[in-house]
Amino acid sequence: MKRSDRLIGMTEYVLEHPMELISLPFFSERYQAAKSSISEDLTIMNQMLQHEGIGHLESISGAAGGVRYIPNVAADKSHQFLSVLAERLEDPARILPGGYLFMSDILGEPQTVREIGRLFASAFTDLELDAVVTVATKGIPLAYAVASFLNVPVVIVRRDPKITEGSTVSINYVSGSSKKIQTMVLTKRSLKQGAKVCIIDDFMKAGGTIDGMRSLLKEFEAEVKAIGVLAEAEDEEDERVVTDYVSLIQISHVDVKNQKIETTIGNYFDHIQ
Amino acid sequence: MKRSDRLIGMTEYVLEHPMELISLPFFSERYQAAKSSISEDLTIMNQMLQHEGIGHLESISGAAGGVRYIPNVAADKSHQFLSVLAERLEDPARILPGGYLFMSDILGEPQTVREIGRLFASAFTDLELDAVVTVATKGIPLAYAVASFLNVPVVIVRRDPKITEGSTVSINYVSGSSKKIQTMVLTKRSLKQGAKVCIIDDFMKAGGTIDGMRSLLKEFEAEVKAIGVLAEAEDEEDERVVTDYVSLIQISHVDVKNQKIETTIGNYFDHIQ
Repeated sequence: MKRSDRLIGMTEYVLEHPMELISLPFFSERYQAAKSSISEDLTIMNQMLQHEGIGHLESISGAAGGVRYIPNVAADKSHQFLSVLAERLEDPARILPGGYLFMSDILGEPQTVREIGRLFASAFTDLELDAVVTVATKGIPLAYAVASFLNVPVVIVRRDPKITEGSTVSINYVSGSSKKIQTMVLTKRSLKQGAKVCIIDDFMKAGGTIDGMRSLLKEFEAEVKAIGVLAEAEDEEDERVVTDYVSLIQISHVDVKNQKIETTIGNYFDHIQ
Repeated sequence: MKRSDRLIGMTEYVLEHPMELISLPFFSERYQAAKSSISEDLTIMNQMLQHEGIGHLESISGAAGGVRYIPNVAADKSHQFLSVLAERLEDPARILPGGYLFMSDILGEPQTVREIGRLFASAFTDLELDAVVTVATKGIPLAYAVASFLNVPVVIVRRDPKITEGSTVSINYVSGSSKKIQTMVLTKRSLKQGAKVCIIDDFMKAGGTIDGMRSLLKEFEAEVKAIGVLAEAEDEEDERVVTDYVSLIQISHVDVKNQKIETTIGNYFDHIQ
């Protein structure tokens, strides 16, 4: 097989297996090529991935070595994506009762969701996470997008137990917005004790839901290494209970009366090397 | 830029933009190469994508022409993936009360979910769909995976209205398993009148939920062009109300007493050319 053919196949394979250690002999056998040729291919690929601003190949030497594709969106690319997103969220037609914003159209776009996932993953590649945790339902697509770039499973916290889930652990918490006592449920066999996780959600005001998730995860002795929210907004009534988080967008002001929304890029770039 | 560099960049771009018409001048400008070189690159890529069994490039000639990546998993690849999946589902530890099967671990794996999406997309590329519709919450990751390969938005039907959704259309339907009257809700602005859609869900017994979705979609004058379920199982009590669907796995028998599950590959290959 020619180099040009090999590079197409290898690029596809590498991109579909982020964070996974791939040995040179694996590629060598898959494409019937000498290890030295594969090694050259990977050097070319590493340079081009960086040129495209979507990450790099990490080389691990030794007998158990190989390469790992580390997704890492270049800062200028992230900035451009987030600027467009922030602007789209300023459309006054998004204003809903209670100062909420309609975001389901954006959250329904697979490519946008995937890019959001790639951005969070870029910030979390060093954390050696075991799982991405989210709460049903809006956070689910974002969590899968993050998880697909980190190559770890998704664990979904539910509001209500379901028969198709088996035995569960549940906690009660007070929701910031409704002041009601709410329940959160996680299937026992969905998360190993002591797992390192990140929490992903679409929207955060005071952070009651995320704080509830932290309490629930404590029951599993899970270590919450990072929290990522697509959009954060001030809560006029309550002080924030979650302070250490990564946000992509900050909704600075929603003026329902004058139908005006102000947004900026969140604290994302503070969390990126 | 050298061909080898270009091929890596173009492969990434094409795979991230399935079903999208990409013009030759776009690549020509992006990689500062003559159109004739880009054209050769695309010929090589088309052959290699087919060799890898993940689809092909469709050429559209003329001034408004270009190429489209059509995801299309080769039959032997699909068969191998589905055989492994069917076998994994036979693990008796999956049996839950009521003859349900625990599948959340499998549905939590981003790579498995993505491959399931790729398989459904392969069956639906000719349907010119406008959206993928699913119902919260188990179907959501599958729907996004399908949608990401078809490059169309996801629309999520909910069990309950949410303040962050705006005005909604709702219907009542009778659930097959619980015999209870249940509600389904879809935000008005989430789907255009007359859209062509496919319905994706994780599990189907008699099909009450999917039938409910069809009724709800009728309110939007949507055309349901296809229905895809990951796993289908017999309902001992009710006759199936949905007959025209694509299933990946068939759960032929769940013997709770003897802790035995029998599965086979679903009707998927009847729907593939």
